[in-house]
Amino acid sequence: MSPVKETIARISALECGTSLTQAVQARWDSLTKPRGSLGRLELEILRLAQIQATPNPRLDRAAIYVFCGDHGITKENVSAYPQAVTREMMKNFVAGRAAINVLCRNAGIETLIVDAGVCGPKIEGVLDQRIAEGTRSFLDGPAMEDTQAYAALEAGMALAAEAAARFDFVGLGDMGIGNTASASALVSVLLDVPAEASVGRGAGLDDAGLNQKRRVISQALSRYAGELSRMAPIKILALFGGFEIAMMAGFTLGAAASRLPVMIDGFISTAGFLVAQRICPELVDYVFFAHQSAEPGHLPVLEALGRRPLLSLGLRLGEGTGAAMAISLLRSGLQLYREMATFAEASVSDKQLQIEEGK
Amino acid sequence: MSPVKETIARISALECGTSLTQAVQARWDSLTKPRGSLGRLELEILRLAQIQATPNPRLDRAAIYVFCGDHGITKENVSAYPQAVTREMMKNFVAGRAAINVLCRNAGIETLIVDAGVCGPKIEGVLDQRIAEGTRSFLDGPAMEDTQAYAALEAGMALAAEAAARFDFVGLGDMGIGNTASASALVSVLLDVPAEASVGRGAGLDDAGLNQKRRVISQALSRYAGELSRMAPIKILALFGGFEIAMMAGFTLGAAASRLPVMIDGFISTAGFLVAQRICPELVDYVFFAHQSAEPGHLPVLEALGRRPLLSLGLRLGEGTGAAMAISLLRSGLQLYREMATFAEASVSDKQLQIEEGK
Repeated sequence: MSPVKETIARISALECGTSLTQAVQARWDSLTKPRGSLGRLELEILRLAQIQATPNPRLDRAAIYVFCGDHGITKENVSAYPQAVTREMMKNFVAGRAAINVLCRNAGIETLIVDAGVCGPKIEGVLDQRIAEGTRSFLDGPAMEDTQAYAALEAGMALAAEAAARFDFVGLGDMGIGNTASASALVSVLLDVPAEASVGRGAGLDDAGLNQKRRVISQALSRYAGELSRMAPIKILALFGGFEIAMMAGFTLGAAASRLPVMIDGFISTAGFLVAQRICPELVDYVFFAHQSAEPGHLPVLEALGRRPLLSLGLRLGEGTGAAMAISLLRSGLQLYREMATFAEASVSDKQLQIEEGK
Repeated sequence: MSPVKETIARISALECGTSLTQAVQARWDSLTKPRGSLGRLELEILRLAQIQATPNPRLDRAAIYVFCGDHGITKENVSAYPQAVTREMMKNFVAGRAAINVLCRNAGIETLIVDAGVCGPKIEGVLDQRIAEGTRSFLDGPAMEDTQAYAALEAGMALAAEAAARFDFVGLGDMGIGNTASASALVSVLLDVPAEASVGRGAGLDDAGLNQKRRVISQALSRYAGELSRMAPIKILALFGGFEIAMMAGFTLGAAASRLPVMIDGFISTAGFLVAQRICPELVDYVFFAHQSAEPGHLPVLEALGRRPLLSLGLRLGEGTGAAMAISLLRSGLQLYREMATFAEASVSDKQLQIEEGK
């Protein structure tokens, strides 16, 4: 069996209605607050407990993995920033001065930078997982070889297996000039929507740039018209993906197989997740969605997955910044779950309990 | 001049387009991220800077003030919990075991409990600002005397003046069995909407309880039909308000006068804020809205005020729990604003700057 198939075989849908679910619900209902009044936080902590398979889930050791890759499609002028910025920003990550560093440092979250395939010499201080120095332009042909797509997936799975031994919880982040173009193409194919619905301004295109980006993606899609609906998700990934997107897809598969919960960040990591979820539908149980990105292609994917993100702040920075903030929110939920007094401990009247007991 | 009028006279709308605004925007735009890509966080930090009148705003010393009060309307069976729970929960606050304590302790936020008018003997460890031992039922007549409404507003203003000397930022919270009924009545009058639009299940009413609550509020409103639209906000507050709601209204006025930024929590504190904003419309510039409550009456108020909250997690716990989480989010925004590298510091290419400079 291939490593991907072997991993998929280890992933099954989370069980509901188990004694674990009942134990978590009983704990929430015992705490001094109206039942259900912590809303989404109660549900997310339940999911966390189900993934970690314990009524006492943990979020102490957390990390953000920032997957970086370069994109051949940038030569078609689909980004507001030059390709060199991917590399420059990686150096900024290593120096600890980018947005994700600031958030993680203040929240006690580790930051790991992964070179999935960036142009230029290797950078010290990053995890070297590079598949190649950037993808090819997907307007000219497949962005990567099928073998490269598999290699990226497998590298992501291996990283997740290591992460599961070190961390309780991991968030995904991305850096890659041009990667919204790649993500939009993947979303268009996998959701069967036109480029108009999946393409946005990325890091800040003006109207002319947005039109150019739409044209490029429409043209790239039209090359395979009619064939795309019959293609396997990994083939589609090879045609339009990025190395960092493919590696994130692999990471989510590997994490679920090890029951390591993952916080998906914004548009790019959601697109990577979507590829993985098409390979293994049960995967959707094992992840959390951090925030609703300002990129227009994000919402249709979340709707197709039937999930709502925790935050909606109009973020479009990437790097895992939304994931870092959402992890802090989950931690607040877990602190409440662990530390609040019960009705019995605090001698507070629980009317609803009285009703149920017929008092 | 009365203390309320004197306070209002010190509040003017925040100035936009000033050199301060430009300085904050220039700082955001200099940081290594696409311009505007931190979305709402950039706007909220700008508001914070404008309120504090400095391009280097602070959020280090933060507190949640939990205003507690009892409500005569509880005798009409409008709450899922008995009135005694207000008091029991105050003891839980003092013991440090309620939801708000857990959140504040973990976030480095101080918690102050204010007795604005709770039934029974005074409780040690809380700020004694009690106006009376609970309001009267607003179904039988005014909930409080006009003099009590003024006293509560003035007590809130005085607390805010003290808070401004101690804290950089304050969040409001509430505890009071029956206070969603009071808040719904205020919202119905001030927005001129029927009880169906303003009344929800509060801490957890069933369908029969919800219908009873709607009937009670409709009946209370019908008592003054035709007169309400001509009444002053403070008169409406006296008819339907709670002492904790009135004190929160006063607090927001006093805070704005001292340029102390305030995080409004959910439905109850928003209703208190609405009363204050009707007294002083400029007040809306000086506050932040933490979260979209599960109570149906909350959204219409936010829409009337033209503001969107930071979080939407289906919370309906009260105590300032949403405010505490939103303060942490604002702090993340401020950390980014302060600690991120600039394009120049990190030698990252700023394409947009190049465009502007004609390069």
